[in-house]
Amino acid sequence: MPQGQPTVVPDDGLTTRQRRNRPLVMVHTGIGKGKSTAAFGMALRAWNQGWPVGVFQFVKSAKWKVGEENALKALGETGKGGTVVWNKMGEGWSWIQRDPKDGEPSHEEKARQGWEQVKRDLAAETYRFYVLDEFAYLLHWGWVDTAEVVEVLRDRPGQQHVVITGRNAPQELVDFADLVTDMSKVKHPMDAGQKGQRGIEW
Amino acid sequence: MPQGQPTVVPDDGLTTRQRRNRPLVMVHTGIGKGKSTAAFGMALRAWNQGWPVGVFQFVKSAKWKVGEENALKALGETGKGGTVVWNKMGEGWSWIQRDPKDGEPSHEEKARQGWEQVKRDLAAETYRFYVLDEFAYLLHWGWVDTAEVVEVLRDRPGQQHVVITGRNAPQELVDFADLVTDMSKVKHPMDAGQKGQRGIEW
Repeated sequence: MPQGQPTVVPDDGLTTRQRRNRPLVMVHTGIGKGKSTAAFGMALRAWNQGWPVGVFQFVKSAKWKVGEENALKALGETGKGGTVVWNKMGEGWSWIQRDPKDGEPSHEEKARQGWEQVKRDLAAETYRFYVLDEFAYLLHWGWVDTAEVVEVLRDRPGQQHVVITGRNAPQELVDFADLVTDMSKVKHPMDAGQKGQRGIEW
Repeated sequence: MPQGQPTVVPDDGLTTRQRRNRPLVMVHTGIGKGKSTAAFGMALRAWNQGWPVGVFQFVKSAKWKVGEENALKALGETGKGGTVVWNKMGEGWSWIQRDPKDGEPSHEEKARQGWEQVKRDLAAETYRFYVLDEFAYLLHWGWVDTAEVVEVLRDRPGQQHVVITGRNAPQELVDFADLVTDMSKVKHPMDAGQKGQRGIEW
């Protein structure tokens, strides 16, 4: 039950209203469950505000997150809230640059092209709420340069909120982000020999 | 990116299929953000499976979680997935026992009556996925007896998944639960003087 009261009043020259409406960069990291799930849960709030929501799913798996995908798409189609665009690397980014000489781009190259699209959308203010799902892995692996990401996020125009999920978020990103939550695993059914099940893991 | 492979095969006499479909009790605790949000994100998966979803919101605030509430209700109304029933203590439980002599029941009494309704629904298998939002507080405060909750959950019939959120989940509940995630705060905008904002906190 958040109290809604800041513990510090910063000396940043902003009014409370300006500060309240400041666009946020949020990071969900750690080895526990709930990083992506909480990000998609936040997207429900954005949808309820009527904001355009853009999801960029930086994973290959087709099965995981299909529940969230179907739900958020269905919400977008109700017309009662914001629009939802779901970009899934597993099905190939629709905007991807294919080079017929070299065949299918590598996972790394697809991921990088996904980031390039995010940059274009941020510049164009395409969405008001972004979920960059599993994006922290790309930074951790060095596929996308963290310093560049921080620079792009810092300079993004308008009122665009961005949530980044994934284990091993680089310290440079954590330092820059406005809100960081570490999801710690206390106990997981897989530790007790239980496999993932529908409705729970996807 | 979960690998989907258990690390242990238990000697419990169950087949993998039986074990896979075992109903789960999940707890999201800790002082960080994302406990409830991740629970509502999970509800998207349950909805996508066509399961009846029951939310019990054990808080008084009307503003918080209105985004998730509107979104999940809208999903339930699409007819494309499961049904959604949202029970909110802030607006009074609809089933509450009123005693005209004593006036409005106390917060504690309302909370306890909410738990009584959860017990009835579990016994009747009303839902397949339950969100008991902020319920851990009630246990921590002693308003509801943790030993009783564990007993009811242990003996619940059928295939009913239950997610309990809130800080300070009692150890007895953590010990019993199948999945426990601790959301740790690394950084929060309120620490930097930022108040909650629409689309983010509600």
